[in-house]
Amino acid sequence: MEETFVPLRGIKNDLQGRLRCYKQDWSGGFNAGVRIFAPTTYIFFASAIPVISFGEQLERSTEGALTAVETLASTAICGVIHSIIGGQPLLILGVAEPTVLMYTFMFNFAKYRQDLGSKLYLAWAGWVCAWTSFLLIMMAILGACSIINRFTRVAGELFGLLIAMLFMQQAILGIINEFQIPKRENPNQTKHLPSWLFGNGMFAFVLSFGLILTALKSRTARSWCYGTGLLRGLIADYGVPLMVLVWTGISYIPGHNVPEGIPRRLFSPNPWSDGAYSNWTVVKEMMDVPLLYIFAAFIPATMIAVLYYFDHSVASQLAQQKEFNLKKPSSYHYDLLLLGILTLFCGLIGIPPANGVIPQSPMHTKSLATLKHQLMRNKLTSTARKSINKNESLGQLYRNLQETYTMMQTPLVHQSSSTTGLKEFKESTIRMASTTGGLDAPVDEFMFDVNKDIDDLLQVEVKEQRLSNLLQAILVGCCVAAMPFLKMIPTSVLWGYFAFMAIESLPGNQFWERILLLFTAPSQRYKVLENCHATFVETVPFSSIVRFTLFQTTYLLLCFGITWIPLAGVLFPLLIMLLVPVRQYLLPKFFKAAHLSDLDAAEYEETASAIPLSFNDQGSGMITCQTDDSEILDGMITRSRGELRRGTFSPKTLVSTRQNSILSPESDCSPQTQ
Amino acid sequence: MEETFVPLRGIKNDLQGRLRCYKQDWSGGFNAGVRIFAPTTYIFFASAIPVISFGEQLERSTEGALTAVETLASTAICGVIHSIIGGQPLLILGVAEPTVLMYTFMFNFAKYRQDLGSKLYLAWAGWVCAWTSFLLIMMAILGACSIINRFTRVAGELFGLLIAMLFMQQAILGIINEFQIPKRENPNQTKHLPSWLFGNGMFAFVLSFGLILTALKSRTARSWCYGTGLLRGLIADYGVPLMVLVWTGISYIPGHNVPEGIPRRLFSPNPWSDGAYSNWTVVKEMMDVPLLYIFAAFIPATMIAVLYYFDHSVASQLAQQKEFNLKKPSSYHYDLLLLGILTLFCGLIGIPPANGVIPQSPMHTKSLATLKHQLMRNKLTSTARKSINKNESLGQLYRNLQETYTMMQTPLVHQSSSTTGLKEFKESTIRMASTTGGLDAPVDEFMFDVNKDIDDLLQVEVKEQRLSNLLQAILVGCCVAAMPFLKMIPTSVLWGYFAFMAIESLPGNQFWERILLLFTAPSQRYKVLENCHATFVETVPFSSIVRFTLFQTTYLLLCFGITWIPLAGVLFPLLIMLLVPVRQYLLPKFFKAAHLSDLDAAEYEETASAIPLSFNDQGSGMITCQTDDSEILDGMITRSRGELRRGTFSPKTLVSTRQNSILSPESDCSPQTQ
Repeated sequence: MEETFVPLRGIKNDLQGRLRCYKQDWSGGFNAGVRIFAPTTYIFFASAIPVISFGEQLERSTEGALTAVETLASTAICGVIHSIIGGQPLLILGVAEPTVLMYTFMFNFAKYRQDLGSKLYLAWAGWVCAWTSFLLIMMAILGACSIINRFTRVAGELFGLLIAMLFMQQAILGIINEFQIPKRENPNQTKHLPSWLFGNGMFAFVLSFGLILTALKSRTARSWCYGTGLLRGLIADYGVPLMVLVWTGISYIPGHNVPEGIPRRLFSPNPWSDGAYSNWTVVKEMMDVPLLYIFAAFIPATMIAVLYYFDHSVASQLAQQKEFNLKKPSSYHYDLLLLGILTLFCGLIGIPPANGVIPQSPMHTKSLATLKHQLMRNKLTSTARKSINKNESLGQLYRNLQETYTMMQTPLVHQSSSTTGLKEFKESTIRMASTTGGLDAPVDEFMFDVNKDIDDLLQVEVKEQRLSNLLQAILVGCCVAAMPFLKMIPTSVLWGYFAFMAIESLPGNQFWERILLLFTAPSQRYKVLENCHATFVETVPFSSIVRFTLFQTTYLLLCFGITWIPLAGVLFPLLIMLLVPVRQYLLPKFFKAAHLSDLDAAEYEETASAIPLSFNDQGSGMITCQTDDSEILDGMITRSRGELRRGTFSPKTLVSTRQNSILSPESDCSPQTQ
Repeated sequence: MEETFVPLRGIKNDLQGRLRCYKQDWSGGFNAGVRIFAPTTYIFFASAIPVISFGEQLERSTEGALTAVETLASTAICGVIHSIIGGQPLLILGVAEPTVLMYTFMFNFAKYRQDLGSKLYLAWAGWVCAWTSFLLIMMAILGACSIINRFTRVAGELFGLLIAMLFMQQAILGIINEFQIPKRENPNQTKHLPSWLFGNGMFAFVLSFGLILTALKSRTARSWCYGTGLLRGLIADYGVPLMVLVWTGISYIPGHNVPEGIPRRLFSPNPWSDGAYSNWTVVKEMMDVPLLYIFAAFIPATMIAVLYYFDHSVASQLAQQKEFNLKKPSSYHYDLLLLGILTLFCGLIGIPPANGVIPQSPMHTKSLATLKHQLMRNKLTSTARKSINKNESLGQLYRNLQETYTMMQTPLVHQSSSTTGLKEFKESTIRMASTTGGLDAPVDEFMFDVNKDIDDLLQVEVKEQRLSNLLQAILVGCCVAAMPFLKMIPTSVLWGYFAFMAIESLPGNQFWERILLLFTAPSQRYKVLENCHATFVETVPFSSIVRFTLFQTTYLLLCFGITWIPLAGVLFPLLIMLLVPVRQYLLPKFFKAAHLSDLDAAEYEETASAIPLSFNDQGSGMITCQTDDSEILDGMITRSRGELRRGTFSPKTLVSTRQNSILSPESDCSPQTQ
């Protein structure tokens, strides 16, 4: 994207681009048929459950001014509007943890001001939203999003890990709270006897760990050995919501042996109860806010604007990573404009605004990535292997692959997507064949590396449409009505779900993988090379990796720490935003440009990484990334942003890169397990 | 072993064989130095913990006549005697679940007889032991053990799975009991309030599942990526006892917030308390048993004799599997004679007798299998790979291997075992080299299959000595004195340990693997072939596997069911013993001899299985068993009986065996995950 700051140009470009495919956005969604419900349900749960517990959290910290009803309503309203008139339909909107933090800071400020108090809190928050909205709209018009390329991996991944830490913190505090008497509750009830508190806490342990373990397990169901493919597919697609149901069911097993309120369940007013409507008319009170505070609202507004600008753009960026091979254009400027308008609207009706969320947005894209390709890969691999064993020519091999590919199309319902795939496959076949020179020489496994080349032939495809986003937003809206049912979910299951979300967001985050690498024993580092790994592992000296990761970790802890400071915590978005100039101007002074480019490829300074050609690659296939196809599929779903390198590196590559890679000469021995 | 029934000949042969290596049995143990403590501790815990909880179980079912003190004492005394003067020192003795069942049946019989009652129960049990002892000694003298070859895999594995089921049953019942008020306890205590019962039960869940998961995880520590090799090795060796300690520690965290007795801990009288000595003088009361009952004691005695004959021999057999490459002779006849004498002794002092136990005995051998070889394999593999990449000749490759092998010897302390290994390695090198014909042609990976051939060169070695057995028996004896400390272990940790033992005994049990195969989706069966698998998977038609497994499962359920029948349950050893003639005379009528031989290789009818030669095996190495070396090591430790086939099968083999193997033509497609 070019960096131009001509007013409105970005918005105009975005609108033009998205309008061109607007019709297909809907038809594509409806064509997908019933299978659209898999990503819809997956994202609905990933979106609704945190929003519900953020509501719980807000209720506690704002003394009931905001509840799960408001957070759900905001998520649903913004989601529906965005999915219909928004730019990028892959982006999922929701009330996020940073918003909750900002609203808490604001409440703590307002509560102790005599002329505001908790009565005028929402009215004042309305002014904050108004200012935020103004700032966001100005940014959108002036093209602030055109510097999106400067939001490199280092900033995005740090933010992703910060969110994961906040999620995990919520999970841990939640479980600890299960052992304590909640504030604002009568401590003389039976369920608050020490004995029942203990039982409640232990039960919470069982339920939350049960959810975490089974949910994580269910995500890999596709590669299980047991059960039919259909069942395994269903479990992999719907396993997580299913597990929420299962563990909610289990929470009822003790039945009448335990008093009412054990285990604790979601608490939220019914949306049709008396007090629930008080904050929808907040706009009437906004004029009661003293003029001084109206202007003071500008300070938190700047922070929220910076936060939303960053969060919304990064969420959108992560949902549109290169690896997904998206066909439709991005829409950063227009989406920021829409976010500004939505923020104003939310402020006026007294609900916290929703913005683009991590990790749900990339999860959404991943769940839409066409899974069929991976199945096809399996079939093509075995075809290729047969050809190699028969000593057939490369031309014959490709003809066989083509035949298999065509054969695979028959049982499929959705012809549209598969024919596109076929066309691409043909093209890449011809491209591949021409580069090899001769098509008629007998092929061997060095000439055609089964594991690697078929992956090159097949591409990830994403079903880009608006339906899944709209449906999940509507379902979130239905949650408001379904509150009596939602109240059956034990809070401990929520804490488990939080931990699950935090864990699910880690794989593929290179920052996280580098942290793990620091703790990997030198003798075991070769395993990293044997498996899928990023380029930097082979090209950047280990000492640079260490320095870079330590710097990033310190920065992360700083960001996390600042959220704990009572009022100054409001500044934490600044710190994250600051990382962009730090990356661009400070880091190049401490790291070699080539290393920095591998550790944190910024598009404005990107270099081609030296991937060894598979044809020169004798001995490749000896140490291969022996993952099963369905496992790759599972991996792809659970994996986030990140260029990958399959471990089809040859021993030669290993030797040549050894001097400067993590495999230092001393570590080139067997694992010291004695 | 020849099947001769000349009286005393078997015993004489055994004694001659074992006496010849008796001195080395001790010197070998002491030479091993401090590392002997790894297998010792491992087996000590595997031996002591079940014995303690069998004691608990006996105490409940015999109304306090027998406790953990007696089971521990019996295990220690018999263990020490057997390890010093026994024949096979790899065999671990202990009070086993079947013994507990028999003693329970006997108590239920004696309790309701007016002229016996619970007062004379132990005296009558003494008579049962006397008869059992007589029968065992007769069997030993008459050479009953020479039919040990008829105890095929089908019988041994069924018995192993029955033990695993009994262990798992104990674990499940144990956890359920944590929610209930124990018998013989005052239900009015604070800890028996419904609220505390609930809390206790939930805490028990947390502790037992915590133990299971962490203990299972710790067994694979060697292949973890994090931590130093030393730490990982320590965790793998001592992880399970460590986890018992850790979870015992965790059980103290609630501290004073919970009343005394939550969580429940081991209950057993201190061995120095008043009543604890009453049963040591049981021999004086044996004459008070009415004559009728003295003769009636012959009936349970036959059952116990059959049981012990089978259990002792199978445990010994499993500890001496072919795969372990033991160098010292077996000693079935003499060990049975000694067991007879020990049974009499135990009966006279009123403690339940100990016999050879499963799965501890094979666990013992496995833990002694020299781990060094696996480390060496890693180093040799990389040497071989380098030679192949340099296009060196096969002769040069072997010279390189030899050099590496010699180099690996230097840092080792125990030269004795390694020089033996070296000699063998040289021999096999020469053997290998001569079969290939030319030593000077450039070697490639088809000629020398790195993954497979190095495994062929290296053999499993077991440190055969008496010290680890003696030490673990002494440690078990110390448990009697350490009772006040043992009482700190929560019962729920015991239940977790039971489940852990049951799970650990499953891998390598082909019966269990066949059950899993029945549930494996046809599309996923290729995975079984890609990984380590037994011969039958490739050679026996799937329908025969199904019929054979269903027969065995029915038989297993029958055996398990009969243990639940109040008094007739005493007959369950007969049912297991019956399997031997069933296997020999009945099964051959329903299954082809070749199939039966692959499913259940009996030595008296064994045929050579057709393993493809690696040199004809073009393309091998493409689908290899891509397990890491330390993982193989973990696998070897946790794996029990079973000839293995590494998945280095070529696609060719796959094709040729497809028509009659589990990979039926229909299933030869990609996994149907849609």
